[in-house]
Amino acid sequence: MAFVPASDLLDRLCVVLVATRNPLNIGAAARAMSNFGFTHLRVVNPYDVAFREARSAVGAADLLASAEEFKSVAEAVADCALVVGTTAATARELQQPLHRLEHGAPLIRQQLASGRVALLFGSEKRGLSNHDLSHCQFLVRIPTRDEHGSMNLGQSVAVCLYELIRTEVAAMPSEPIDRATSGEVERITGLLLDALRASGYLKPGASAPTEEKLRCLVRRMDLSARDAELWLGMMRQILWKLHNG
Amino acid sequence: MAFVPASDLLDRLCVVLVATRNPLNIGAAARAMSNFGFTHLRVVNPYDVAFREARSAVGAADLLASAEEFKSVAEAVADCALVVGTTAATARELQQPLHRLEHGAPLIRQQLASGRVALLFGSEKRGLSNHDLSHCQFLVRIPTRDEHGSMNLGQSVAVCLYELIRTEVAAMPSEPIDRATSGEVERITGLLLDALRASGYLKPGASAPTEEKLRCLVRRMDLSARDAELWLGMMRQILWKLHNG
Repeated sequence: MAFVPASDLLDRLCVVLVATRNPLNIGAAARAMSNFGFTHLRVVNPYDVAFREARSAVGAADLLASAEEFKSVAEAVADCALVVGTTAATARELQQPLHRLEHGAPLIRQQLASGRVALLFGSEKRGLSNHDLSHCQFLVRIPTRDEHGSMNLGQSVAVCLYELIRTEVAAMPSEPIDRATSGEVERITGLLLDALRASGYLKPGASAPTEEKLRCLVRRMDLSARDAELWLGMMRQILWKLHNG
Repeated sequence: MAFVPASDLLDRLCVVLVATRNPLNIGAAARAMSNFGFTHLRVVNPYDVAFREARSAVGAADLLASAEEFKSVAEAVADCALVVGTTAATARELQQPLHRLEHGAPLIRQQLASGRVALLFGSEKRGLSNHDLSHCQFLVRIPTRDEHGSMNLGQSVAVCLYELIRTEVAAMPSEPIDRATSGEVERITGLLLDALRASGYLKPGASAPTEEKLRCLVRRMDLSARDAELWLGMMRQILWKLHNG
């Protein structure tokens, strides 16, 4: 069991804000990140392009200035081995395992011992879409009341990050897991979709929900980096034969 | 120790906001209180008297409307058996015991079993004054970085209340996992082997170790019964196409 300094753990978490409407919430997220020692902020299609000037990022202007911007969740999480979504989980049927925050946090810390983790937060109004969720291995839920589950975005970021740093780093279990990155999982999903189209399992114009279901199916395999490589090789060969048989 | 319902505990906590400048922060505090099931908000000399209209109190308008207003901390905490202050505790010499939030929370919960507790939050700029602190039995500090200790008020209220309910709420029932049988896993392995042979990935007389490796690979997918069925269907179709393409 290798010792991993706490600062490395913090450095491996990416807070990913998806389709955030209010730039003040992006600033508030940046402030909470700085309070707790996290540094990597990524934003996907923010509604307000001027978010970098958000005055709510008190003491975290640098962090906000260095935020990375992406066009899609897939790109934003491509280098991450574990992708975790946050949800108030009220009315939706979920494809992924759902953990209470305090039970999900140890799983996140475990992965941080060996690789990057993305923690996704959806928009203020709608949260994460089913498409966003299809990139996630599991979801966490802050234990709010059923009657009023929806939290302010900046507050939910603060609570999640607090939970992540709450437990002493020394007490961390750290059997490092060499998980496949999201980029690799996405490539396997793509090959599988191609093979299913080529074989006639899917109609040529398969709908987005079908694609999301398949992404979730591959996600649930929870592949190691080594197994992902094997699957990629096998799928490529099968696909080649389907096209050239 | 008598059994006290969780709702009673929540009902006995008073969140006391002292000399808050920005009404949006009062609204945000109200929202977090409602998220976690607390109801008693007290404000002492708010800077903006129109705080009750704060739009940030999403879903917590009633709670904000019923907030009690006081002229002094002494009056606001008069009926409370325990008064706890919050602080970033950077430059000040403290007269009271200071606990990290997660160590102070059990003491607060213990008191809530028998009587009212006031949890004080100071103004955005200066926090609680020494005079305010003089009403407190002890102080709690959210474990922020020394270099950037000062949190947004609404976020710090959310984090403190989260910590208070964190261990109180009954653990979520975990979903039963309907795992695939070994027979199903074996059938998927068989179809995969056939597909790999048909595609030329495996030589016709693949060795037993190769077969075992592939079985382990499929095992590691740790499939649910439902997913196993999907994989069986997909593999069958791909295999059919490989043979009849």
